[in-house]
Amino acid sequence: MAEVIAETRTNSSSRRHGGGDDTPSLPYMHKVGAPPKQTLFQEIKHSFNETFFPDKPFGNFKDQSGSRKFVLGLQYIFPILEWGRHYDLKKFRGDFIAGLTIASLCIPQDLAYAKLANLDPWYGLYSSFVAPLVYAFMGTSRDIAIGPVAVVSLLLGTLLSNEISNTKSHDYLRLAFTATFFAGVTQMLLGVCRLGFLIDFLSHAAIVGFMAGAAITIGLQQLKGLLGIKDFTKNSDIVSVMHSVWSNVHHGWNWETILIGLSFLIFLLITKYIAKKNKKLFWVSAISPMICVIVSTFFVYITRADKRGVTIVKHIKSGVNPSSANEIFFHGKYLGAGVRVGVVAGLVALTEAMAIGRTFAAMKDYSIDGNKEMVAMGTMNIVGSLTSCYVTTGSFSRSAVNYMAGCKTAVSNIVMAIVVLLTLLVITPLFKYTPNAVLASIIIAAVVNLVNIEAMVLLWKIDKFDFVACMGAFFGVIFKSVEIGLLIAVAISFAKILLQVTRPRTAVLGKLPGTSVYRNIQQYPKAEQIPGMLIIRVDSAIYFSNSNYIKERILRWLIDEGAQRTESELPEIQHLIVEMSPVTDIDTSGIHAFEELYKTLQKREVQLMLANPGPVVIEKLHASNLAELIGEDKIFLTVADAVATYGPKTAAF
Amino acid sequence: MAEVIAETRTNSSSRRHGGGDDTPSLPYMHKVGAPPKQTLFQEIKHSFNETFFPDKPFGNFKDQSGSRKFVLGLQYIFPILEWGRHYDLKKFRGDFIAGLTIASLCIPQDLAYAKLANLDPWYGLYSSFVAPLVYAFMGTSRDIAIGPVAVVSLLLGTLLSNEISNTKSHDYLRLAFTATFFAGVTQMLLGVCRLGFLIDFLSHAAIVGFMAGAAITIGLQQLKGLLGIKDFTKNSDIVSVMHSVWSNVHHGWNWETILIGLSFLIFLLITKYIAKKNKKLFWVSAISPMICVIVSTFFVYITRADKRGVTIVKHIKSGVNPSSANEIFFHGKYLGAGVRVGVVAGLVALTEAMAIGRTFAAMKDYSIDGNKEMVAMGTMNIVGSLTSCYVTTGSFSRSAVNYMAGCKTAVSNIVMAIVVLLTLLVITPLFKYTPNAVLASIIIAAVVNLVNIEAMVLLWKIDKFDFVACMGAFFGVIFKSVEIGLLIAVAISFAKILLQVTRPRTAVLGKLPGTSVYRNIQQYPKAEQIPGMLIIRVDSAIYFSNSNYIKERILRWLIDEGAQRTESELPEIQHLIVEMSPVTDIDTSGIHAFEELYKTLQKREVQLMLANPGPVVIEKLHASNLAELIGEDKIFLTVADAVATYGPKTAAF
Repeated sequence: MAEVIAETRTNSSSRRHGGGDDTPSLPYMHKVGAPPKQTLFQEIKHSFNETFFPDKPFGNFKDQSGSRKFVLGLQYIFPILEWGRHYDLKKFRGDFIAGLTIASLCIPQDLAYAKLANLDPWYGLYSSFVAPLVYAFMGTSRDIAIGPVAVVSLLLGTLLSNEISNTKSHDYLRLAFTATFFAGVTQMLLGVCRLGFLIDFLSHAAIVGFMAGAAITIGLQQLKGLLGIKDFTKNSDIVSVMHSVWSNVHHGWNWETILIGLSFLIFLLITKYIAKKNKKLFWVSAISPMICVIVSTFFVYITRADKRGVTIVKHIKSGVNPSSANEIFFHGKYLGAGVRVGVVAGLVALTEAMAIGRTFAAMKDYSIDGNKEMVAMGTMNIVGSLTSCYVTTGSFSRSAVNYMAGCKTAVSNIVMAIVVLLTLLVITPLFKYTPNAVLASIIIAAVVNLVNIEAMVLLWKIDKFDFVACMGAFFGVIFKSVEIGLLIAVAISFAKILLQVTRPRTAVLGKLPGTSVYRNIQQYPKAEQIPGMLIIRVDSAIYFSNSNYIKERILRWLIDEGAQRTESELPEIQHLIVEMSPVTDIDTSGIHAFEELYKTLQKREVQLMLANPGPVVIEKLHASNLAELIGEDKIFLTVADAVATYGPKTAAF
Repeated sequence: MAEVIAETRTNSSSRRHGGGDDTPSLPYMHKVGAPPKQTLFQEIKHSFNETFFPDKPFGNFKDQSGSRKFVLGLQYIFPILEWGRHYDLKKFRGDFIAGLTIASLCIPQDLAYAKLANLDPWYGLYSSFVAPLVYAFMGTSRDIAIGPVAVVSLLLGTLLSNEISNTKSHDYLRLAFTATFFAGVTQMLLGVCRLGFLIDFLSHAAIVGFMAGAAITIGLQQLKGLLGIKDFTKNSDIVSVMHSVWSNVHHGWNWETILIGLSFLIFLLITKYIAKKNKKLFWVSAISPMICVIVSTFFVYITRADKRGVTIVKHIKSGVNPSSANEIFFHGKYLGAGVRVGVVAGLVALTEAMAIGRTFAAMKDYSIDGNKEMVAMGTMNIVGSLTSCYVTTGSFSRSAVNYMAGCKTAVSNIVMAIVVLLTLLVITPLFKYTPNAVLASIIIAAVVNLVNIEAMVLLWKIDKFDFVACMGAFFGVIFKSVEIGLLIAVAISFAKILLQVTRPRTAVLGKLPGTSVYRNIQQYPKAEQIPGMLIIRVDSAIYFSNSNYIKERILRWLIDEGAQRTESELPEIQHLIVEMSPVTDIDTSGIHAFEELYKTLQKREVQLMLANPGPVVIEKLHASNLAELIGEDKIFLTVADAVATYGPKTAAF
């Protein structure tokens, strides 16, 4: 094999370009290719498809009969029609056990989370009945467990109480349904308009910080229930809460409540620890909240501890979800507020659900369809808002339990919904004596995992900017409020993108000795620069936002390197090669910048050469006549080619 | 030379990697290098410098004595102290002639442009006296001519009259000074905080469209003066204006005015045409507005045409700029409005000045310092706002004349300022009889060039998206208003950036026959794919905004290509090589996406390999342990290396 190469080289060696072993050996091969010319329509169609339909969702609709298309369309909207056909008893066994497990976890959580949203506990149960049913028919994730979650409940509660401070009023409840409705509309629109990529702008780092901050905020708020404090601050920031806690220490704490709360909290944390150490015992932590509720309720009922200052749930409504269709504000002064809160809550809920869906899909190697998920989530929240539910999404803790309990499909959500329905019909009145302190300890135990210190350490190790975004969101949430934290997170994420597009990297390349490979001399200190030539790689598409910077940075390199070489008495730079491989696109501002660069270089008697412009770039170079200006013979397939043609002879190998 | 290469190859051919001639021939050379580890502080310092000080402005301050540093500091703030030392009579000759020429052009334009801002004509002259003097001391451009310009005057007039509709009131004038002050503050802050790159976000394409739209709007507004219409619409959109023009056709048009206006307009356009055809006669068009003013004023004075309905300037104040320091609203209800208008006008003015400065600097091969320019512009407008000037900037038409008249330094601005001063002191009263129709025709003739159809055609040819941005701005301005046009331009520009960062390109690579160069198979249809391998190049840094898309797009390529190869009965894909050369950075979301990609590929029994990760990427791959997960031996210097190691033997050469 090796001889063949040597031979190929020898054959090609007599040709014009001689040297560089990167040089193609067939005649004319060195010419930079332009892709086949596309019509304007094709071009637009292609970019449109790549932007909105990169997953080709309608690929299998092609060449099908009308009735088949109808069936495929139905299956597209309701994936259950497709996977349901292969459903069997074995899968049901897994789903049934998983469904029962997550039901036992979700019922106590539902009662607790509803309080975070300043709603009565039964609205949590309502939300865990309707929403999972809708999702099961329309969703594409097999592992996600749907229901109210801590962070979204807190966010909703905070945002709603900013609008209507009296959380006991009927208008507050109506606004909650309105926000839920518009959260669903937002999610659905994102899916239908295929704008799902917008949620990617909330970066992983920002979410880690936001979640951790929200978890601590939620935990602090539970001190009210856990310590039995009656007169508690309405602010959520850490300073107000700690002040409220300490100022109540002498007369506001209720020792019976603390005893109940702390003992169950310790029990919950121990079961969590056991489950963490031995993955097989995950069910211990999954059913422990239910055990807490049962034991504590029974205990309060027989000791009548509620008469000694232990607050209990007291009033609880039984029965299935009532309709809330005419509770939604479709006009009037609260419509705007509902839309605002709904959009924010909907986006955050979606972000959480997508992260969960993707994580589990990668673990089992199936793919979830982002846009379909959004439509499913949207429908679920719209239907939910009409049936007395508040914003629901995928819960990380319950989805993990679902996964570990061996769920196979979304049927586990249906099983859970049926258990919740039975609870609503039969058991609910029994929750009357459940102490609030136990609900508080269930919440604390649930949100502990949201403070992901490992992830933060990893952010610090990998990317300092990400860490800053994470901390910004974290401190924003705990010292100000959830909205401010969210705002900081989004702002830092955007700043990062802007920085990326305005200040792309450039690198000076050198030749790795004994090869024709040109690499960054900072990364490969052994790489050698070519006498009389400067090779610069531009590491980004060249757009209006960075074209001036790139031009000026290249000239700066030229001046700095030039001065250095004059100092070392090396030959002056006569050729500037711009390696364009990473330059995937260029716009008119970029073309202008290159024209200016070319003119400046002409004045300084430095020859500009380009290496390996991509398909889009070469097309635009021709369209703008820049290719002719620079000279077609100055555009090369590789840097090695350019060096071989214009460089010193010794540099060619 | 060729034999040497052949020999090198033969020598290296017995080594492990054998085949690929892109393979380095020294042992261990194939290892991907990691750059020398930097401390956190170094890292932060480096990115900070690259973001804010890419031009190393304080490079020559290093290792200097205290007094020398002071001198250098003064020279830094007032560049005239540096270039002034080499100033000589020969340069002054050029500057003197150029200064006289631009003065004769600027005086009539000043009178006319002030009316666009709804100000009395003498404010235009004031602005052409103080501002150029300040700029001459602080600016770095040698060719720019400073003064009021048409588009900024129009923008200011529109924005101010939105706030105070009675443009004759004293508050309106005060608000104009307030806006000018804050325009200056904005410009200065951008320069001091070195945030000048922000103005790059107004793309070239957007400016072309915005300018053309503004020119047409300005031209249409002149129909009032040109046709002598008294009852004219206050709206600036084309529909209102044309309606106003036609509804006045029977009783509102003044035929004497039209006669004067049109004949001078034709004269001006002819001189413009002459200057365009013969560059040496540029002075013909430069002095023609002055001729028009003199001739028409004399003509009106002797015929007393003003008594027959020809409107004239009538009242004009003579004397030097009065102070306006205590006219500025530093508090009260108009402060906010002043800041808003000032920021917008300041940014647009700056964008125009920077574009002009860069254009002429490239033509003469000197460099302008963007941040210094902003400080100079800012100071000039702040000082201007205290001395009865309104927002000034670089004028394209006058700068071009300045350049062609042979200006050497900013001294031409000083000459012009002195001529304007003399005019203010001596000649101003003579402008009393200048007919408004002539001013209108001067404006029309001046803005004609702003409609740059050639540039629009080029935009269409080079980049369709740019063309859309251009047209959006254009139609926004002419059918709605200048602000809406500006907003559309900025929005489209941002959308383009967002699209770039969310939907980067990916390409399948193939091997150019007879070489070891791997290129996009769409661009080089001759490139051959390697059996059993799929090589994909990712053309962007991998960030949270695109990591999911990239992951899913790679999997999609794998599925599509896999299906195609199965159909053609080619070997199944067992290796996926991701060419990372263009991937200049990766963040934690990107690392996550690659982890998920790796897991998915493991399930599908496809081996993931990476080629040529850059310095930052390789560091993060190690920091996150992803390098160990994928396997150090799966990370290669080049694609050819990876193919040589794991590919079929026949593919290696």
